Amino acid sequence: MRPVAIIGIGQTKIDEAWEKSIRQIAAEAIHAALKDAGRESADGIFLGNMMSGIINSQNNLGPLVADWAGLKTPAVKVDAACGSGGAALRAGLMAVGSGELETALVVGVEKMTDRHPHEVTVALATAADADYEVDMGISFVGLNALIMRRYMYEFGWKHADFAQFAINAHANAMHNPYARLHHTITLEEFEKSAMIATPINLLDASPIGDGAAALYIVPADSLQAGSRILIAGSAAATDTIALHDRPDPLFLAAAYKSSQAAYQQAGVGPGDIDVFELHDAFTVMSALSLEACGFAERGQGPRLALDGKLTPQGSIPVMTRGGLKARGHPVGATGVYQLVEVVQQLRGECGKTQVPEARIGMAQNIGGSGATIITHILKRE
Amino acid sequence: MRPVAIIGIGQTKIDEAWEKSIRQIAAEAIHAALKDAGRESADGIFLGNMMSGIINSQNNLGPLVADWAGLKTPAVKVDAACGSGGAALRAGLMAVGSGELETALVVGVEKMTDRHPHEVTVALATAADADYEVDMGISFVGLNALIMRRYMYEFGWKHADFAQFAINAHANAMHNPYARLHHTITLEEFEKSAMIATPINLLDASPIGDGAAALYIVPADSLQAGSRILIAGSAAATDTIALHDRPDPLFLAAAYKSSQAAYQQAGVGPGDIDVFELHDAFTVMSALSLEACGFAERGQGPRLALDGKLTPQGSIPVMTRGGLKARGHPVGATGVYQLVEVVQQLRGECGKTQVPEARIGMAQNIGGSGATIITHILKRE
Repeated sequence: MRPVAIIGIGQTKIDEAWEKSIRQIAAEAIHAALKDAGRESADGIFLGNMMSGIINSQNNLGPLVADWAGLKTPAVKVDAACGSGGAALRAGLMAVGSGELETALVVGVEKMTDRHPHEVTVALATAADADYEVDMGISFVGLNALIMRRYMYEFGWKHADFAQFAINAHANAMHNPYARLHHTITLEEFEKSAMIATPINLLDASPIGDGAAALYIVPADSLQAGSRILIAGSAAATDTIALHDRPDPLFLAAAYKSSQAAYQQAGVGPGDIDVFELHDAFTVMSALSLEACGFAERGQGPRLALDGKLTPQGSIPVMTRGGLKARGHPVGATGVYQLVEVVQQLRGECGKTQVPEARIGMAQNIGGSGATIITHILKRE
Repeated sequence: MRPVAIIGIGQTKIDEAWEKSIRQIAAEAIHAALKDAGRESADGIFLGNMMSGIINSQNNLGPLVADWAGLKTPAVKVDAACGSGGAALRAGLMAVGSGELETALVVGVEKMTDRHPHEVTVALATAADADYEVDMGISFVGLNALIMRRYMYEFGWKHADFAQFAINAHANAMHNPYARLHHTITLEEFEKSAMIATPINLLDASPIGDGAAALYIVPADSLQAGSRILIAGSAAATDTIALHDRPDPLFLAAAYKSSQAAYQQAGVGPGDIDVFELHDAFTVMSALSLEACGFAERGQGPRLALDGKLTPQGSIPVMTRGGLKARGHPVGATGVYQLVEVVQQLRGECGKTQVPEARIGMAQNIGGSGATIITHILKRE
């Protein structure tokens, strides 16, 4: 496969965009990416989205978005639940890498706030096993609560030990104009926030939202070396869909597999990663990702947060633009937001949360409670 | 992109499979394709599906199906409404063609009969424009009824002139053990059948159903020339999602574009196609496809049917295994069924509906009322 690079990025502010439709926010991100890339169209569009069929009564999102954006270009939707954005980049990468297309737009879009929150909760649960998890009465946050409780029990952490994941995310989001939440939080607020599903409270959890993000990709050999943003590693891995089927529910096997494959492709290891946009849907997921990807020993993820290693000045900066926690989590779009943010870091566009001399960045996108995990490594070179 | 071939096929009988879940029928088709290919696993799974989120309360279909099939392999869902099956093959083709994967399973699956027909009608309508078509009160069959009525008016056909499309499909399905409907129909029955949305009656329309089909693909250069089934052409094209936005709603522009691109790739023209599995969701769509793909002049599609040109012995055999009309139309799976059937023809496995010496076959899969159209050409060589 020929090397592929990202030459354009676009994103909308994550919000409750009641005055806009899903096609509008997708087209906004597309036009921003086209402008950034200095292009007018693309040979194909790969759309990451999870729940348009349920929440927006709209499948066939490809032509809907291509049409509204004014691009009569083949367009297809790729779905891997909350991992849809990363899956869309993988599809676009293979299309351009194979030579089948010369250019592609990779778009993540989700419009979640037009329905009652109960309906959104039901839609989110479609990421889990409908027959053997959801039909038993558990919600998606409930599944994550089982993970967090077990993690605390096994490794001896208390709830407050997870606070720094959220505090760091909120602090970073203050400097991201596209973030959903623009307020810092304190340890006291973290501990006192409303309980959602014990032990997960409001400040452990990422907010939903409406948003779209886009990448413009081309063959790397057409670009001048030095400031290219290459897709140096790309890998997906699959675990059981149901949490209870995993021999060790506290180990993200698919994160391990996909990160190892991506490291190998990129010729790097965890120590080389300058910035890591991970999938902090819930604070405990940050710990599990850091461990599975080789940044911490098993059960020691929270230590990195407590020791301040995850800030933009730390040894492994994460959620530098706010993460899912404070930038927001428009589920099918999130994976593309992560990649846009890594590009911003590698370009040095992140102002107060810029990681000094960031050259290699990683984004990891998770669908379900670890069922589909897609890892990308980007390199400036 | 390196050439890719199909070495295994599998399918389930299209039915009301109330005793099976969506993961079970998908795994059945996968295991049949693996057995046919003489393989035990694959490097990736590409799943075509449209409505699992709405009808089966299940997104994240990739790991659900991979898990149940006993394959811990990366798996992703591709959605282009009723064109999802063809879109899944295109995704798999680019993955194997690019060298990113060595083998892939392409699966189409849909489980539609577990809910009330009203819910299925609502789910089918998500293939159209939710805001500007469906919210106005029109259903998906209603949109096709507008097309058919206009077609009859513009070109002077009467309803009975479309009967031969359905009669041919039912006659061919008699010899396909996987078909949903196993009964022949007459012109009189066609004319007297229940009205659905004037002028579309029950025998103009394809039945929904539960079904899964699968293809196993590998690089062609690993195979011995002579009896390989090559994917010689593959192209997708997009039109407006809404019917009313098209300058000419009786011309399938995306069918024209994608078939022209596929012809060019394969180095063939309409006259070289030995068998054509087209997307006869409604009889009028057969006419439009035949015209857009160069088999008939504008407005003259029904003439081919009336003259007996579409039977297995005719000049351009279509729906040789029953088509959507009688084999059945499990929407997101249909595109893969079409491809499986073309492979069966090229292998000479079709018994009484075998097209003599079939060597080049085409499959065309449509998402929405012509919004996404994907054309594949397969060649035995």
